[in-house]
Amino acid sequence: MLNIGIAGLGVVGAEVAKLLLNRSASFADKAGQELCITAVSARSRGKDRGFPLDTIAFVENPVELAERDDVDLVVELMGGSEGPALQLVTNALKAGKSVVTANKAMIAHHGQALAQIAEESGAALMFEAAVAGGIPALKTLREGLSANDIVRVSGILNGTCNYILSEMSETGRDFESVLKEAQDKGYAEADPTFDVDGIDAAHKLAILSALAFGHQVNLSDVDIHGIRPITDIDIAYAAELGYTIKLLGIAAKGQKPSVKPCLLPSHSQLAKISGALNAVEFDADPVQSVICVGPGAGAGPTASAVLADIIDIATSRGGLPFGKPTDRLSSASTTNTDGGYLRYYIRLKVEDRPGVLSDITSVLRDEDISVASMLQKGQSADAPVSLVLTTHHTTQSAVLNAVAKMQEMDILFGAPLALAILDAEAS
Amino acid sequence: MLNIGIAGLGVVGAEVAKLLLNRSASFADKAGQELCITAVSARSRGKDRGFPLDTIAFVENPVELAERDDVDLVVELMGGSEGPALQLVTNALKAGKSVVTANKAMIAHHGQALAQIAEESGAALMFEAAVAGGIPALKTLREGLSANDIVRVSGILNGTCNYILSEMSETGRDFESVLKEAQDKGYAEADPTFDVDGIDAAHKLAILSALAFGHQVNLSDVDIHGIRPITDIDIAYAAELGYTIKLLGIAAKGQKPSVKPCLLPSHSQLAKISGALNAVEFDADPVQSVICVGPGAGAGPTASAVLADIIDIATSRGGLPFGKPTDRLSSASTTNTDGGYLRYYIRLKVEDRPGVLSDITSVLRDEDISVASMLQKGQSADAPVSLVLTTHHTTQSAVLNAVAKMQEMDILFGAPLALAILDAEAS
Repeated sequence: MLNIGIAGLGVVGAEVAKLLLNRSASFADKAGQELCITAVSARSRGKDRGFPLDTIAFVENPVELAERDDVDLVVELMGGSEGPALQLVTNALKAGKSVVTANKAMIAHHGQALAQIAEESGAALMFEAAVAGGIPALKTLREGLSANDIVRVSGILNGTCNYILSEMSETGRDFESVLKEAQDKGYAEADPTFDVDGIDAAHKLAILSALAFGHQVNLSDVDIHGIRPITDIDIAYAAELGYTIKLLGIAAKGQKPSVKPCLLPSHSQLAKISGALNAVEFDADPVQSVICVGPGAGAGPTASAVLADIIDIATSRGGLPFGKPTDRLSSASTTNTDGGYLRYYIRLKVEDRPGVLSDITSVLRDEDISVASMLQKGQSADAPVSLVLTTHHTTQSAVLNAVAKMQEMDILFGAPLALAILDAEAS
Repeated sequence: MLNIGIAGLGVVGAEVAKLLLNRSASFADKAGQELCITAVSARSRGKDRGFPLDTIAFVENPVELAERDDVDLVVELMGGSEGPALQLVTNALKAGKSVVTANKAMIAHHGQALAQIAEESGAALMFEAAVAGGIPALKTLREGLSANDIVRVSGILNGTCNYILSEMSETGRDFESVLKEAQDKGYAEADPTFDVDGIDAAHKLAILSALAFGHQVNLSDVDIHGIRPITDIDIAYAAELGYTIKLLGIAAKGQKPSVKPCLLPSHSQLAKISGALNAVEFDADPVQSVICVGPGAGAGPTASAVLADIIDIATSRGGLPFGKPTDRLSSASTTNTDGGYLRYYIRLKVEDRPGVLSDITSVLRDEDISVASMLQKGQSADAPVSLVLTTHHTTQSAVLNAVAKMQEMDILFGAPLALAILDAEAS
């Protein structure tokens, strides 16, 4: 019998508890032993969650779950990268109790330290639900593709951003109005910063990258850009060119992991993932490419991942959190490139007067950037116009230099936008 | 140290051997022990395979690998559901040696008996490579989604058929000419029966279905239809209606598993899988839907799956072949339905004369089938014309009855075609 203590009975915690109670026979079968909830901790004791808590110990302070003799495995579903969640997980692992968590922020910030504690005490630490919700992305990487040399992991890792970009693309509406609607429908938080600024995706990417390349989890290694600068003009022009804009997390071998909006060929697999879905593509040798698509959030999908981890621990399939001992995890690469040589999409807001175009093309020439196409959207003597151009293959640093020079020259209105075009690379 | 004997050094076997030799340090790390090839068996000893065989014992009769003291694990990559492959695997399992195989035909025909032998001797029997090539479909089903109640598994399980249908769809060409081209390019066998008649997909579906629903593997439980009857007319008319024709393997809870061409909404995930790729969609509670896409064949992808199984066995992650003891596997459902109530696509070849349409609509009325749309392709007093119609929701038996009656009435030329339209169901 495996005695389980659950910290946090929000929608995910309640779903996990309900399934552990309702499917006990089937889970005992799969886990090779009974999975028994012995203690829980939650904000409100009395709340009706659709299942009885009477036979289960209720603990006011979640951290106490780590000390209880009747708890073998702690399921942490409170959230928050610091505070009681971190304290509980730290104490539980120190006490030799295995931990399952869905807490991406905590793993992205403290995964290395926690894995080290787990290693020392021999406890398991699993966090499948922290990345891409119901998609078994970590298991696929760690076990399903265990014989592979991972070349690149790219993913649509934030459902809110993908929903917003898909809606903008399908309806032609602007970012603000789609965000507002997403908030009204409950798809986006009142404070959308974590999602739309790419931070949530960066948490997940930091974890995926560590597992893929055997380096330490370190959120600060990730280059993070969000989708706020993306306008309806960008989406429309990308579509004209045969591309779809997606917020991608990309961890490629030997490169700094990055979360940023990119142009993907509209016929590519990842470009076709619309709405609030998540998707993870593994480019690896010898498997070539495997893509998994599924719900990235929600009580059911998250519970599915949490329970799979619990069953894995019960059957001793846990293993080391990052696949090898922590002292053998390397540092992440900090080479900030887009894989060398890519095409770029650049959108500038400029005054519609003679000389501006010449200034811009001179800057590009000086950075050795060759223009593939250029389009002025609208025409007006009074208001600034959007100038959209695509380059031939060049480097990220050349593009960043060119854009910085244009900003210095005082010919731009607002911030320019430069997005990588991923042609064969992410198809 | 895990001593490995490999039977069969074709493209897959050679790739597995090469990777075991070239990546020995990385694999030892992941497997927790050295993975060492001690013996091989192949048709030709002398052939240059790009790696040295001198330090490895060469065995003329593959079945002898089961008897060798220096072999702990047998990798069977010879193929053929009977004969030496079956003998080798049977003997190895009886001797308590674990087995990894990519042999879908053998597992589909003899999986139950082999799993029983494995269970008795405590050996592992793993066959990830038998289903959907490089996609870790069995691991996803057995472990990644272990907490789920599987509702349905549907998949594009044969790359040759998907390539042919995709090409027909993209170029408007007919089946025979695309098949010929696929054969010239090496995508299809000289005798394409196994692929185009759905038998290869049925092998894989029988295995997926057994794992998904905990029943015995039994190929004869699968209702099998191939893609030979699909014409360019069907593809074009389906496209007009917003559908794409795919050969799908479908195993749904409580229903007879089936392999058959179906109409999928063109915007659905599975409809967008083109070319020689495979894809498997898991509909399950509570995860909702997870889809995995990847290469379904080829040396690299198959080797990836074979090696993942070897590493799983080395780390004791093997488990029972079908997830539970064989004596507790039930029989597969034999209820032959399409999930009850579906729309159908029916194509008939008829004489273009008064009265024929009245005969057909009477038959449909008698079977209580309501017509949603009807289209006559072409018009000719001399030659038969194609009559294409879609129905409102009805049952498979009503459609089969109607079609049988029309055939009896002697108003049809050639065989009629009736395909299920999977609307919400497989999107």
